[in-house]
Amino acid sequence: MRTEVCERFGVEFPLFAFSHCRDVVAAVTNAGGFGVLGAVAYTPERLEEELRWIDDHVGGLPYGVDVLVPGRIDESAERAGRGEGDLGSVLGAIPAEHWSFVASLFEKYGVPAPDLDRRRNAAAAAGGARQVTRQGAAELIDVSLSHPIRLIASALGPPPPLMVERAREAGVAVAALVGTVEHARRQVAAGVDLVVAQGGEAGGHTGEIATMVLVPEVVDAVAPVPVLAAGGIATGRQMAAAMALGASGVWCGSVWLTTEEAETAPAVKAKMLAATSRDTVRSRSRTGKPARQLVSAWTEEWEGPGSPGALPMPLQMIVAEGAMRHIDKVAESGNEGARRLANYFVGQCVGLMNTVKPARQVVYDMIEEFADAIERLNKITEG
Amino acid sequence: MRTEVCERFGVEFPLFAFSHCRDVVAAVTNAGGFGVLGAVAYTPERLEEELRWIDDHVGGLPYGVDVLVPGRIDESAERAGRGEGDLGSVLGAIPAEHWSFVASLFEKYGVPAPDLDRRRNAAAAAGGARQVTRQGAAELIDVSLSHPIRLIASALGPPPPLMVERAREAGVAVAALVGTVEHARRQVAAGVDLVVAQGGEAGGHTGEIATMVLVPEVVDAVAPVPVLAAGGIATGRQMAAAMALGASGVWCGSVWLTTEEAETAPAVKAKMLAATSRDTVRSRSRTGKPARQLVSAWTEEWEGPGSPGALPMPLQMIVAEGAMRHIDKVAESGNEGARRLANYFVGQCVGLMNTVKPARQVVYDMIEEFADAIERLNKITEG
Repeated sequence: MRTEVCERFGVEFPLFAFSHCRDVVAAVTNAGGFGVLGAVAYTPERLEEELRWIDDHVGGLPYGVDVLVPGRIDESAERAGRGEGDLGSVLGAIPAEHWSFVASLFEKYGVPAPDLDRRRNAAAAAGGARQVTRQGAAELIDVSLSHPIRLIASALGPPPPLMVERAREAGVAVAALVGTVEHARRQVAAGVDLVVAQGGEAGGHTGEIATMVLVPEVVDAVAPVPVLAAGGIATGRQMAAAMALGASGVWCGSVWLTTEEAETAPAVKAKMLAATSRDTVRSRSRTGKPARQLVSAWTEEWEGPGSPGALPMPLQMIVAEGAMRHIDKVAESGNEGARRLANYFVGQCVGLMNTVKPARQVVYDMIEEFADAIERLNKITEG
Repeated sequence: MRTEVCERFGVEFPLFAFSHCRDVVAAVTNAGGFGVLGAVAYTPERLEEELRWIDDHVGGLPYGVDVLVPGRIDESAERAGRGEGDLGSVLGAIPAEHWSFVASLFEKYGVPAPDLDRRRNAAAAAGGARQVTRQGAAELIDVSLSHPIRLIASALGPPPPLMVERAREAGVAVAALVGTVEHARRQVAAGVDLVVAQGGEAGGHTGEIATMVLVPEVVDAVAPVPVLAAGGIATGRQMAAAMALGASGVWCGSVWLTTEEAETAPAVKAKMLAATSRDTVRSRSRTGKPARQLVSAWTEEWEGPGSPGALPMPLQMIVAEGAMRHIDKVAESGNEGARRLANYFVGQCVGLMNTVKPARQVVYDMIEEFADAIERLNKITEG
């Protein structure tokens, strides 16, 4: 295929695969797409190890990294990210009722209580939040740029200036996700080379403007900067649709969660395969910011009458992520209540994800469906 | 063009235009599309007059009618629709605080108080609700089928059985709007010949699943019944995208609101031309059901701390519609507060509606953009 993005990034099929799973990243790159490793809650050592593994498995083919660092580091994030030393103030910022609400959910759903050493749990979660500090982000960026990546992305807001500077020096393109035209303009002004226009049907942190409207708006607003379409896309005909809207390619995250390679918790994977497009919700209950995810007893309880309400990011993450990991583990043993609570970030396209396939097969299927869609359009217009 | 819908409905370009304005309906049909008159709050006499006018202006070219009657007639609607005789009980169902909240908004925004004869206002609104009764719906269906229409649609839920029966006898196709796969299956089981899959980015009553996800799901679920895509579509490249998703055509409503012919209130038209895709909201404040519309002081006040909350349909319509008509009128005289309150139903594609054009020009532009999008896709894939 020939789009600006294909040429610039050396890909045959402009399908960008965002995944936390290195096997997915390598499989997509090897199948003709472009894998992007989502390095959330990674230490620099862990990231180094993952990227070395990918280098060993893609034979020089193109891939990228999303370091998920925020453009503006806010104070509470800094506090949380600074780790053990500040744990007292982080814990102090979380009201007791939030911890007891989580404990009451475990009791209500018959989930055995987890390790209740809040200090240790919070330390683990805060460690994960380290990358949202300036120092933590810089380390991850440096590790990334020491590998032959072609793209570095930041999923949360505009890329920090240091990312743009260092990527420029290394000759690596910078990408950023946006949910509005205003954000797209700001990103381009901040030096972004590739804009990912992500509609509200996407999984994870997302806005409210749908892909069908957002993509043409952003394409017009940032031209000639190339745009990838994201949000709700899991099939080749949707990819053809996105490119009819003016996108130079697509960025998919959800579709990999039900692949053979994905490390999705088994109970959650089963839910995703059974889910329809109605079974997601934009909820603050996992991170503190609106993020689309499977509807589950967890999201419903946090919206319910007994809920203390979600805390701001990253405090809600500290409250939620340890609990969700515990829930996934207990669900695996067959605990019914844990299965009801379990969920994960996923877009509305979960309704189109109905079979487990290897990641490379997802790419091959999308290539075929894409070609079919173009052929159908041509047949229609020949008439 | 050649799609099932083009052949079945005798149209050159499968663009269905939903409009309350007969001039738009005729202009689109005459330009090669398919106009659909939205007969909301019409008496049978008024509908007869409008359809006769359209017949006189389209020279036998195809068009349709959307009578906006619900499949299930609920009790409060029946009560409201039975008119004067039941006004006491209708008014009784509306708490005094809702009337005084509206009065307080007029005062707060410096809008001269309207005619406060609630009985008369409610009677007028209840008259408009007549079509949601069995008898009222049957009259509108009969009037419609006495004209050479090719399509009859019902925008609110599955078509009532009497619509399907009478349309079948008359050889007229029945269409219905759906927001989920489950509704689509139910509509087809109820005898619908054409499904309009409407994404959550649409204006008016709408669900939460985006067009990008809903269309392929519905296409697969109801095949071989043809599907029109709706929701967020205002340009030819979006139409190409919709057809890449598997739709046989598109159904557009919002885009006509800023045409020369549209009867949109001037203050609202100006707001739409200036609006971005962020300036809409799904709100219950006009009808009692979630309907996407321009954000305005009206929608914000009904969500605000002093609001008594929206009533169920059709009670909220009785409270809101008289007030909104008054606001539109006062806004025309330049009253700033009225301008801030004024709004109307419109989809997120309002961000793409930036110039006033004749309706036929909208069709011509969409035809050209559609062809450009197909050409671009072919260039990409030739590579």
